[in-house]
This record gives sequence, C-alpha cells and structure tokens, in this order.
Amino acid sequence: MSFVEDAIKFHAEKNGMLAVASKVPLRNREDLSLAYTPGVAEPCKAIKENKELSFEYTCRGNTVAIVSDGTRVLGLGDIGPEAAMPVMEGKAVLFKTFGDVDAIPICIDTKDTEEIIETVRRLQPSFAGINLEDFSSPKCYEIEDRLKEICDIPVFHDDQHGTAIACLSAVVGALRYVKKDIKDVKVVVNGCGAAGSAIGRLFVSMGFTNVIMVERVGALYKGIDAPLDKMQLHLSEVTNPNMEKGTLADVAKGADILVGVSGPNLFTKEIIASMADKAIVFGLANPVPETSYDDAIAAGAAVAGTGRSDSPNQVNNVTVFPGVFRGAIDVRARAINEEMKVAAVYAIANLIDEKDLRADYVVPDAFDPRVAPAVAAAVAKAAIESGVARVEVDPEVVRANTLKRVGR
Amino acid sequence: MSFVEDAIKFHAEKNGMLAVASKVPLRNREDLSLAYTPGVAEPCKAIKENKELSFEYTCRGNTVAIVSDGTRVLGLGDIGPEAAMPVMEGKAVLFKTFGDVDAIPICIDTKDTEEIIETVRRLQPSFAGINLEDFSSPKCYEIEDRLKEICDIPVFHDDQHGTAIACLSAVVGALRYVKKDIKDVKVVVNGCGAAGSAIGRLFVSMGFTNVIMVERVGALYKGIDAPLDKMQLHLSEVTNPNMEKGTLADVAKGADILVGVSGPNLFTKEIIASMADKAIVFGLANPVPETSYDDAIAAGAAVAGTGRSDSPNQVNNVTVFPGVFRGAIDVRARAINEEMKVAAVYAIANLIDEKDLRADYVVPDAFDPRVAPAVAAAVAKAAIESGVARVEVDPEVVRANTLKRVGR
Repeated sequence: MSFVEDAIKFHAEKNGMLAVASKVPLRNREDLSLAYTPGVAEPCKAIKENKELSFEYTCRGNTVAIVSDGTRVLGLGDIGPEAAMPVMEGKAVLFKTFGDVDAIPICIDTKDTEEIIETVRRLQPSFAGINLEDFSSPKCYEIEDRLKEICDIPVFHDDQHGTAIACLSAVVGALRYVKKDIKDVKVVVNGCGAAGSAIGRLFVSMGFTNVIMVERVGALYKGIDAPLDKMQLHLSEVTNPNMEKGTLADVAKGADILVGVSGPNLFTKEIIASMADKAIVFGLANPVPETSYDDAIAAGAAVAGTGRSDSPNQVNNVTVFPGVFRGAIDVRARAINEEMKVAAVYAIANLIDEKDLRADYVVPDAFDPRVAPAVAAAVAKAAIESGVARVEVDPEVVRANTLKRVGR
Repeated sequence: MSFVEDAIKFHAEKNGMLAVASKVPLRNREDLSLAYTPGVAEPCKAIKENKELSFEYTCRGNTVAIVSDGTRVLGLGDIGPEAAMPVMEGKAVLFKTFGDVDAIPICIDTKDTEEIIETVRRLQPSFAGINLEDFSSPKCYEIEDRLKEICDIPVFHDDQHGTAIACLSAVVGALRYVKKDIKDVKVVVNGCGAAGSAIGRLFVSMGFTNVIMVERVGALYKGIDAPLDKMQLHLSEVTNPNMEKGTLADVAKGADILVGVSGPNLFTKEIIASMADKAIVFGLANPVPETSYDDAIAAGAAVAGTGRSDSPNQVNNVTVFPGVFRGAIDVRARAINEEMKVAAVYAIANLIDEKDLRADYVVPDAFDPRVAPAVAAAVAKAAIESGVARVEVDPEVVRANTLKRVGR
C-alpha cells in the first residue's frame, strides 16, 4: 500500500481514531441509580451551590475542547469544518496518548470572528480548557485575545504558542550546546504569521534583546511604512532595537539564530554562511523546510533542526501541548500565561543533560517519556506561582501522576 | 455511607464517569505520521471533496452531542449548565454502555432560544446526531423544531420523545396483555408539558383515535378558552374528538388507559376505580408517581407501571435512546422521524413473547440485552424505508452488530 492508502486506512479502518469510554461500571439497577436518576441529583445540587465542584464531580476537570473552524488546516488552507475533523481528532489522540488529557474535537460551522468567540464562550461549562487550532490569521489573534478576556479556563492557540514553545525549547537547547547567552545573541525570525509572530513574542518575553522579524516587506522596524496586521505592527514596535532594514539576506548577516516559519528552501547556503560563528538554524516550514538539516550543517551552521521527524532536532509541538494542558488542568488554571509558557520551554530544554548535548541532539524526542511529566510539573508550578491556579498541587506530584498516566 | 454520599462518591471518585479513548496505537514515529502530520492530510483532502466521508473517516460517525442549557434538570429546575453536567455525563455513560454510542456532554452557557439554536447548528460538523436534554418548556419545542429544519443529522429531544417511546412501548405491551385494540381504547394523558405532549402526539400518530389531554385547566378540546402553549394548542385541536370537558376525574371515567406525567399521588383510588374494565395505568411522575404500582392494582387496574426501578413495569427511556441513536447513526440517518419512533415502540413492546406477558411484566427490563439491538434494527429499517437513511444496512446486521458492541 502507498502512504496515502496507509493514511486513509489508519483513519477509516475503525471509523475514526477516537471513542468515549465509561470509567464506571453499570452492572445493575443500583449502579444505574447512582450514575443516573435519582443519585445524579446529588452532584448536580452540590455543583449548583459551588460551580468549582464541576471540575471534581464531572469529566469537565480532565476535558479540553479542540476547536477549529477549518480555515487554515495544515498546508491545505480553508477546507471547512468537516474536513478539519481528522486533524482535530488526531490532536485529541495525541492529547490522550501523551498527556492523558480527554480532548474533544469540535469543528464549528462558522467563519465569523464574533460568532466563533461567542460559540466557544458558550461551551465553557463543559471543559477545563480550550485548545484553538487551525484558525486563519489574523483573526486567530482576535479570537484568542477576546476569549482569554472572557473565559475563566485556559484558552491556548496551539498553532501559535505550542509551536513557539517547541521552537524556543530547541533554541535554548542549542544555546546551551554552543554556550551562548540569551542576552548576547542576535535572532532573526523569517515569517510573521501566526506561528512566527508567537515565536517572536516568546523570544522577547524570554529576554532575548535583539530579535528581528522579517516579513515579505523585509525586516520589521518601528515606524515601517508597510501594510501590517495587528501582531506584525506590535512586533515592529518591540523588536529590532537597532532598526536594521532590508531583506532576509541583509539582516541575517551576523545573526546567531535564524528561525524560519515561512516557506521551502528560503535559507540559502549564502545566507547561512553569512551568519555568526556557531550559528543556530531552524527551518520549520512544513513539509519542505527553509533548509534541510544537512544543507544547514554543510553551510556552516553549528546546530540545525526542522519540523520533520526524519531528520535530527525535530521541533514538534507534541512535546508541548499534552504536558502544558496536563499541568494547567491539574491545578485548574484559569489561563495559560507567559510564565507557564516559559516554564514549559525550560522544562523541555533542560531534559537533556549538559554532557548528552550534541549538535544533532539539542531537543528531546517526541516519544521521550520524560517530556510530558516534566512540562506538566513546570507548568503547574508556574501557574501556582503566577497566581492563576485554582488549586495547589505539588509539582512533583503532578510529574509523578503524569508519568503514571502516560507511562509507556 | 448514605445514598447521598454513595452518589457523590460514584461521580467524584474518578473525577467524573466519562473519558476519551484512542482506538489506535501511537507507538512510534510511523504511527504518528499516519495519525497526524503528514498522513492526516489524506482523510482531510478526501472529506473536502466529499463531506459524507467525515462519517467514515472520523469519529463523527459514532458521536452524538448531548446538549443542555441546564434550565430544567430532573426535578431540580434551572440549575445552570455546570450543575447540569452530571446528568449529561450520566446520559453519555448510558449511551456508551447500552448502545456503544460515543456521546459527549455539552452544557451551554446561554438560555436564549435563538442562541441555543445557532450554537447547536454550528456544532453539526463534529457529530452524527444531537440529543437535546433538559431544556425548559415551551422553548424546547421551538429549539427542536427549528434545529430539525436546519440540521442534516438527527435532532432528538429525549425528554419528549425518549419518554414518549418508552411510555407507548409499555402501553402497547399492556394492550397486548389485556387484549384490547388501539382503535377501540380511550386514552387520558394527565399533564401536557414536554413529556406529556410528546406522549399525546405519539398516541395520535400511532393511530389511537380517542386521546384526551388534561392540563391544569382541565381536559383540552378544540376551541378551549385557556392560556395554552403552542404544543398544547396543537393537541387541543387534534385530540378529544368527543369534546369531553372537565377535570381529570371527569374524563378518566370509562378510560382504558391513564398516563400521568404530572405530579405525585394525583391518581386517586376513585379515579382508577372509575376507569373501564381491564384498565391500564402508568404514573410517570418522578420520583413520586401519580400512583404506586400496588395502589393502582388495588384500585382495580389490570396493568400498572411507574418510572421507578423498584416496582414492576418500569417505564425507562434507557430502553429507548441508546438503540434509537444506534440504529439512526448506523444508517447515517438525516433525522429521527415518526416512523422511526413508532418502530422503536413496537420493537420494545414485541420483545416479550405473548406467553410471557404478565400484569407485572408488559415491558422489558432496562438491562435486557435484547432491547438496544432490537430497537436499533427496527429504527434502521424504518429510516431506510422512510427515506432518511444515507446508507443502507441490513437491519439484521445492525441488530447483530449492536449485540456484539454492547453484549454483556
């Protein structure tokens, strides 16, 4: 069978990949009277008096909605909510397998920003968190920002923040390997869509001081006269302190770190060769990256990586979202804030011991069983310390429980 | 422990009763590449070309949303969406256990009819069917009617139709036992809320010719001058051909069948004694019925039943909704129509052999393993014959598969 046939079969053979399971036995009338009427009235009455108990007495506490309108699915574009379902279902399987989070794919039949926001808001009572997925840019910013304001549970656009955390964890690992410091490096991010802009913002909030965003119009700088979306405008104001102007090739000169979330083969040999000594290059375009791992190394990069599973240093948000949500919902967080994202970055990067770091191993494997427990523990700790946790749980307990839940 | 403590523990011990399960293994990078990127693009592309494939290539085909706004939960009234969750989750567990239907509790944070309708419509792409639950009356009629018009998947308000089918299956069983014919009997239904009016309508659509609905204002008849909701008005026009007027006690005289969906102890000894020979009495008020089984029999009823599990002839919609949805989604029905409801009634009633019928056994037990398979097969057959099935499946295959899925 071809890969295409294999892929269809994987999804179709059992009519989808996801099912519901009951955690309780219903063997007889007594079980039935506890699970349903009349016994079910008791948790209902208790929750009516204290809504917080809904996290404890119902599946809500471990359940996350994966919401999409299907307007920007993989590289396929606006394929609609029905056709987006396999991706959301696949994501739910990853949530379950890697984080024991019960995630429900919810593909909604509207593309209107206000309707999307209001629909998700109305779904809140059934969920402990909302994972936004594959909304087109720039409306994805508005949707996430507004939902974060009105929701009392985490709202997390994984295309932005999952990718940014995964990318930064690889960058931090690479910096540890080449022994450079965040404060001293020049960073260039090529591409300022949803993922690129989130990566740029996370660089900034982690203390990188010299970050340059590059879009089709060239390097962004304060006051640039170009048609920018809200997030690009914001980044033009808070990055590029030296007001460097020009093309990617211009600003990449002397850069220590080059990240691409743009398009295939845009990082030429010349561009990589023009970077600083011990350059770090991550080309994250999918499926064809800005540069292959081998080409980047051949051009002089000290560390390289892509989003591909068939070459070293894969930047994969499977290392991120299961643990991030596991940690967030274990402490019933009201949000996933910057502190929690940064904690996730370091949790992933620091999993590799100093002595084990290699040019082709700066980021742990997606199947490394330590990843989700470490991320969950770090995120839970940061949630507690930053004041968004509803309950306090010892991070080491979160780590141990996560390992027990997903241990393979 | 008390029953209250037992009930809380049953729901809280595992933090709810429902979980998500993956039907596929994710053991390695190859599995990952099939379940998620890049392989997942293949089912996406196929569904984009043909939306119907979403039922086959994703979990949608076996997934039903249980939607509530929490405005009329059990006898607890308007307790809100969070507090309604245990009921919806309990229902999902019953769907799974009795029908192997993957049902998702969705409690929505709005009480506005238009917003509810629009929210549910937007959820369609992820589900094969919608089970509406515990919406207050009369808005529940508007919500269901409008959603049936705009949705291309079954929309079924279980408080109405699940109860009506369960009730009618018990009535048909009782008529078989007392050897009376649908055409010859006088029926009185006391209570014309959501369940009562659905029971009244199902009596009519099944060919009962003399049905009298009784509300607080007395027997409904054509042209009655009283404040009626839309459904009561409709029933006042299509029932009570002899224009009988007066109280429950007045119109119950000589009735062959008396059904209560009203309140505790309303069916007095005198009322039951005034009924026709071989009277059939079902008091379905919860938790205290219109008459207990024993009182009804002592007052002269030939057959009696309640909604309670601790007395004979329990009328329980657990016998209904798992099989109804199983059959409907197995043929990818576009709706659950009258033909399918009537088919479910007879499928349940006819499970008991003529020779096994007794005064205290006219309806099969909720745990009878034959129920859901029989209902599913009958509903699938009726869906195909009435033209609402998207795919044709041999009803005997539906029956056998259901038995295999839920066999205990």
